[in-house]
Amino acid sequence: MPPRSPLAPSVAPHLPALAGVHLAARACGVRYQGRTDVCLMAFAPGTAIAGVLTRSLSPSAPVDWCRQALKGGKVRAILVNSGNANAFTGKLGKASVSRSAKATAAALACTANEVYVASTGVIGEPLPDERITAALPDLIADLGADRWADAAAAIMTTDTFAKSATRAAKIGGVEVRINGIAKGSGMIAPDMATMLAFVATDAKLPASVLRSLLREASDRSFNCTTVDGDTSTSDTLLLAATGAGPAHAKIASAGDRKLADFRAKLDDLMIDLACQVVRDGEGARKFVTIEVTGAASDGAARRIGLAIANSPLVKTAIAGEDANWGRIVMAVGKAGEKANRDKLKISIGGVKVAAQGQRVAGYDEAPVARHMKSSEIAIAVDVGVGRGRAHVWTCDLTHGYIDINADYRS
Amino acid sequence: MPPRSPLAPSVAPHLPALAGVHLAARACGVRYQGRTDVCLMAFAPGTAIAGVLTRSLSPSAPVDWCRQALKGGKVRAILVNSGNANAFTGKLGKASVSRSAKATAAALACTANEVYVASTGVIGEPLPDERITAALPDLIADLGADRWADAAAAIMTTDTFAKSATRAAKIGGVEVRINGIAKGSGMIAPDMATMLAFVATDAKLPASVLRSLLREASDRSFNCTTVDGDTSTSDTLLLAATGAGPAHAKIASAGDRKLADFRAKLDDLMIDLACQVVRDGEGARKFVTIEVTGAASDGAARRIGLAIANSPLVKTAIAGEDANWGRIVMAVGKAGEKANRDKLKISIGGVKVAAQGQRVAGYDEAPVARHMKSSEIAIAVDVGVGRGRAHVWTCDLTHGYIDINADYRS
Repeated sequence: MPPRSPLAPSVAPHLPALAGVHLAARACGVRYQGRTDVCLMAFAPGTAIAGVLTRSLSPSAPVDWCRQALKGGKVRAILVNSGNANAFTGKLGKASVSRSAKATAAALACTANEVYVASTGVIGEPLPDERITAALPDLIADLGADRWADAAAAIMTTDTFAKSATRAAKIGGVEVRINGIAKGSGMIAPDMATMLAFVATDAKLPASVLRSLLREASDRSFNCTTVDGDTSTSDTLLLAATGAGPAHAKIASAGDRKLADFRAKLDDLMIDLACQVVRDGEGARKFVTIEVTGAASDGAARRIGLAIANSPLVKTAIAGEDANWGRIVMAVGKAGEKANRDKLKISIGGVKVAAQGQRVAGYDEAPVARHMKSSEIAIAVDVGVGRGRAHVWTCDLTHGYIDINADYRS
Repeated sequence: MPPRSPLAPSVAPHLPALAGVHLAARACGVRYQGRTDVCLMAFAPGTAIAGVLTRSLSPSAPVDWCRQALKGGKVRAILVNSGNANAFTGKLGKASVSRSAKATAAALACTANEVYVASTGVIGEPLPDERITAALPDLIADLGADRWADAAAAIMTTDTFAKSATRAAKIGGVEVRINGIAKGSGMIAPDMATMLAFVATDAKLPASVLRSLLREASDRSFNCTTVDGDTSTSDTLLLAATGAGPAHAKIASAGDRKLADFRAKLDDLMIDLACQVVRDGEGARKFVTIEVTGAASDGAARRIGLAIANSPLVKTAIAGEDANWGRIVMAVGKAGEKANRDKLKISIGGVKVAAQGQRVAGYDEAPVARHMKSSEIAIAVDVGVGRGRAHVWTCDLTHGYIDINADYRS
């Protein structure tokens, strides 16, 4: 068990009960011994759902299942296991997901396409789903409204801390709640795959509205983070709305102005969860925020930010506490997005380093070098062509990453 | 001075004189002390040239200069310095290149747009070009036909060995010669930027033919290699044809069948040089050949190969001698190119590991684990959709890479 990430939040938030959601976790011995590894989330009848799944062209069997189920927009259960990703397992894997979903549906008296399945762990090994389905009666008996922390712990693989967040939001003056849990320690961890996140609200929102909110929020949160640039076969992000909370104004469209606060709080919660994943990045010693402005579009700004965030040379310079801004110039250049080299501005820790395509006159490295020694690094880049902007979050690339990933099975 | 890469060729090839090319190297103290750091290559009147330059949008001043000069298709000199990349140096950098080229042109009685300049080293610092131009009379006095090894040594930055290759090729029964030198230790090295390569032949080939040959050859060689996926601001590859060798049949078009052997030998020499750069990859302990077949096109195969080759999780698994084929599946999935997950085949060291979207029945890891312990690793992937194929070359990602890049200035 690796030590807790030095970038972990000092206190884990307490997630209050959320009307319409019950959770349970059990130790089923899928792969790990002596810890919980299966979590069941059960939702009240009528709960709507939207999801964002990996764009990998070699997705896991559970991702295929969820993509299909999401067309219905309804959820009664999410069944998650850690230890085995059920990815690249062919027909065996597909049958395994189907059996798990059907057994859960039978136990909860719902249809199989209201059951979502997510798996995270080793790739290429058949999933012993019978160990999971055998535990269903106990999981159902254990269901409770205050088990969010147990659920967050059960889905961890190489994570060094459980990840959760909660927010209150107002819809037309009525306070609703948003809870979320996530796991991940790299876009993909050792051979323990994946990023998973499950978010729920007691607000009453149709699946079409959830889809729109989730797509926007994920583009501003999880899609703006990277540990190592390696996209998982199993990335799964689900957002459920139970409608079991206090009655609020009816919302029929994502464009409804009454959603403004909810949208802001959802974005905020998802950025919180996404940044917790980055803070648990494999071997991470520094948390890095990259702000890109002046790009041709917000999407271009994000891609430039990710080019900087994914550059091994930038990441190792940060690990080495080296204010090596030439590597940022290099990364902007390779991003493939419009940028004006001769207007490029770079600041590190709020100190201007370069402008107008060259180092600022009388550049004093001392304050920048001091900033590089802290555990929270801020980089700002203006590429001088437009109004597009984005924040991207990443961590440094350290000996710890090599230790975890090169020395894992050897 | 880091120790010589364990993957370096045991013997450096001897490059014979090549009619129409003279070379010299001097220690000018651009940045390094006690070693040569400037090289001049002088070409006979009438020499044609083609080039491939970085696609970075923040290219160095010398790259801007070369892009302009290449329109003329003629060369009389290439002036190269190590220690300073003259990148992100704004107007100062532009003026510096212009002064260097004009001084060289005056000394050799040619025009400035027949002079090519390349610089490799630290980014963002003004180039002390006066130290280079002051040495021009000595460089010209030193010019000799047998100084290829001196030239290859002078352009090194963090390289642990000088890189050169030579081939004989036949054009219509007449033997011509191709010599080449290169530097690079990563697509970009610490803050010592860049990959540079200079290739010359004594064949008589017009610039239009050279351009076509060079584009094809670079797509099969340098563009199929990666150390860390970081594209330099300064990548420069120039191919000159002096026409000063033995008379051969006139060649007016790149499609001429008499070029078949020359094309094959040029490809072979450039793959040799490109692989030498990979073998000197920062911290490299293993040289990795990735063969991709069954892709929608050759370009798609190359992009899939590069996704595998650039994956930090694949590279660290190789460093850890771990036959972690699940990470290859992940990398194929994230490449964004058409691939059939359920037909995917993977072999490592010639042993079939996975087929039909899952691990092969009765998979025995022992022979694969033995292969992973060698210093030359072979990975073959068939993605099951078409006839596209490519070879890609890379190295592993080790603690040595972090040492070199994170601990460089700290």
